[in-house]
Amino acid sequence: MVLDLPTPCVIVDADVLDRNLRAMATAAAGRGIALRPHAKTHKCVEIARRQVELGATGLTVATVSEAETFAAAGLDDLFIAYPVWPTRERAARLRDLASRVRLRIGVDSAESAEALARAVPGLEVLVEVDSGHHRSGVDPGAAGALADAAENSGLTVRGVFTFPGHAYGPERQRPAAEQESAALAAAAAGLGPGVRSGGSTPTAALTGTGVLTEMRPGVYVFGDAQQLELGTCEWADVALTVESTVVSRSGNQFILDAGSKVLGADRQAWATGFGRLVELPDARIVALSEHHATVALPEGMPLPRLGDVLRVVPNHVCTTVNLADELIVTAAGAEVDRWRVAARNANT
Amino acid sequence: MVLDLPTPCVIVDADVLDRNLRAMATAAAGRGIALRPHAKTHKCVEIARRQVELGATGLTVATVSEAETFAAAGLDDLFIAYPVWPTRERAARLRDLASRVRLRIGVDSAESAEALARAVPGLEVLVEVDSGHHRSGVDPGAAGALADAAENSGLTVRGVFTFPGHAYGPERQRPAAEQESAALAAAAAGLGPGVRSGGSTPTAALTGTGVLTEMRPGVYVFGDAQQLELGTCEWADVALTVESTVVSRSGNQFILDAGSKVLGADRQAWATGFGRLVELPDARIVALSEHHATVALPEGMPLPRLGDVLRVVPNHVCTTVNLADELIVTAAGAEVDRWRVAARNANT
Repeated sequence: MVLDLPTPCVIVDADVLDRNLRAMATAAAGRGIALRPHAKTHKCVEIARRQVELGATGLTVATVSEAETFAAAGLDDLFIAYPVWPTRERAARLRDLASRVRLRIGVDSAESAEALARAVPGLEVLVEVDSGHHRSGVDPGAAGALADAAENSGLTVRGVFTFPGHAYGPERQRPAAEQESAALAAAAAGLGPGVRSGGSTPTAALTGTGVLTEMRPGVYVFGDAQQLELGTCEWADVALTVESTVVSRSGNQFILDAGSKVLGADRQAWATGFGRLVELPDARIVALSEHHATVALPEGMPLPRLGDVLRVVPNHVCTTVNLADELIVTAAGAEVDRWRVAARNANT
Repeated sequence: MVLDLPTPCVIVDADVLDRNLRAMATAAAGRGIALRPHAKTHKCVEIARRQVELGATGLTVATVSEAETFAAAGLDDLFIAYPVWPTRERAARLRDLASRVRLRIGVDSAESAEALARAVPGLEVLVEVDSGHHRSGVDPGAAGALADAAENSGLTVRGVFTFPGHAYGPERQRPAAEQESAALAAAAAGLGPGVRSGGSTPTAALTGTGVLTEMRPGVYVFGDAQQLELGTCEWADVALTVESTVVSRSGNQFILDAGSKVLGADRQAWATGFGRLVELPDARIVALSEHHATVALPEGMPLPRLGDVLRVVPNHVCTTVNLADELIVTAAGAEVDRWRVAARNANT
């Protein structure tokens, strides 16, 4: 399927997308875990609505401005999975949001709990715990004391959450999922009943049913080259690609007109390149400039022709979507819609 | 200088910017080399106009849509330094552009020369040669034959160009600049008199005056952490920073609310991290998520406070600008203007 559009362009296969949305909804429901998908991946109102229609309890977002975008579109149950610091202007925005939707945010220190309580008295929060990713979050053993401090400050503590980001690596999914469960169980022991929220796309299938009450995968809607190379999605699950034109050829290499300004420059140490190609799964993107992807082919494989259009699967689809103003939606190879990336650049 | 704005936000110091613009204009003029700055770095009409006001012969751009953006703003001498493949729709856009501005584009194969000549008869082109970056471009020894083929196809060949992108690495500037000069000299020998265009910010100060007639640096307008670490700009030359808030702290690490969705994820193998901090030059950004920069401090150095605002110098400023809708322009610590990133997402 190749559309006659200026390249590079970001294309979504609506049928694959809907299959992905249904599969995760069914899997979560079957295991009795609430699904609260992370909307930072797609940033599109149309997809958020479909997720809720299929049973999601609400959305996860990363920033106050993402929450504002989805609240304005009628999504009314939002969790900002981030240790938001309430500056004066951000405090006013949080108060406004909390008056309009069911809002929860993350907290990982007594100091920020106090600041949040002054800013938005009674605000619902989840205590963030570190399950091994070592980014934000407190040690699980400290969650109870932080929850007490937050309650004493005037917040309403609804439970605990973690992000097992260390699952992004070969063979790391199972140990990370186990650490996630253990961390949430240990943290929850200090709090009593409540939300125990975890989950990521790489761990979604492994998430412990005995512990988690909620999971927050994001990337599963589209899939990407990272998930392909981790083995946590199949080629047939990839719903978003970047159509690109061959513009130069030399030796066993050729150049596509998709670079870091459309794909994003993410490349984990274990990735085989800067993305993958649907039509040439054995090719590797060995270098990425702003407007050039340098693609190397195995010895002896014929080069594509100048002007050929190929589909690139980006390494990390969340950053690809954030570069686009709109997604071109297709079904059976034909354009059927365009979706605005409503929360693009919603970083504040 | 810290503004009371929602973070993260992209700030330009107008005084530093103007000093950078003047310094490069003066240096080029003093060496008798025409300056055709690459506008993909700033993507702003205001900066493009100032570059021309200070003596630039025109602009370099990377894509047809960037050319369209600047042409619409009255910039009338544009070189698309890219091996553009003329699909039907792109051919129509090139014809339209060529009718309105002085347009030149890159060519690196006889096949694309033929296609371009069919699309835009008489179009002015520069033959791209590879000076060691091994991306696009022909061997210098093949430039003469390609120029002949292009002329025979019906194009107007104005000279040769190269991009010494292999200068991006420690101690690589001088050898890359020497290869650039040698490649352009060898290529030009097959063509006769004409444009010999090269240049990049890392090689700008080393560009051979005997060979180059034109240079195309981009990043010099703002500087960035890559240039700092290559030694090709000083801290005082950094004109663009991303103001970010400390949101979490633990051990000798803290988290800023600027991630890859505002900074870009570029990280060359030789970079010391994912960007640098103006207020803490000894700190390193050891990990970068979409909305978290994980900053490590040297042992014993006190952590900043929650809510502190720090300025991040991104690794690669071209991709930072392409993520922003506008740049907040300051002078003497106060906001004086906002410039639209007019060519943001102009990838086609």
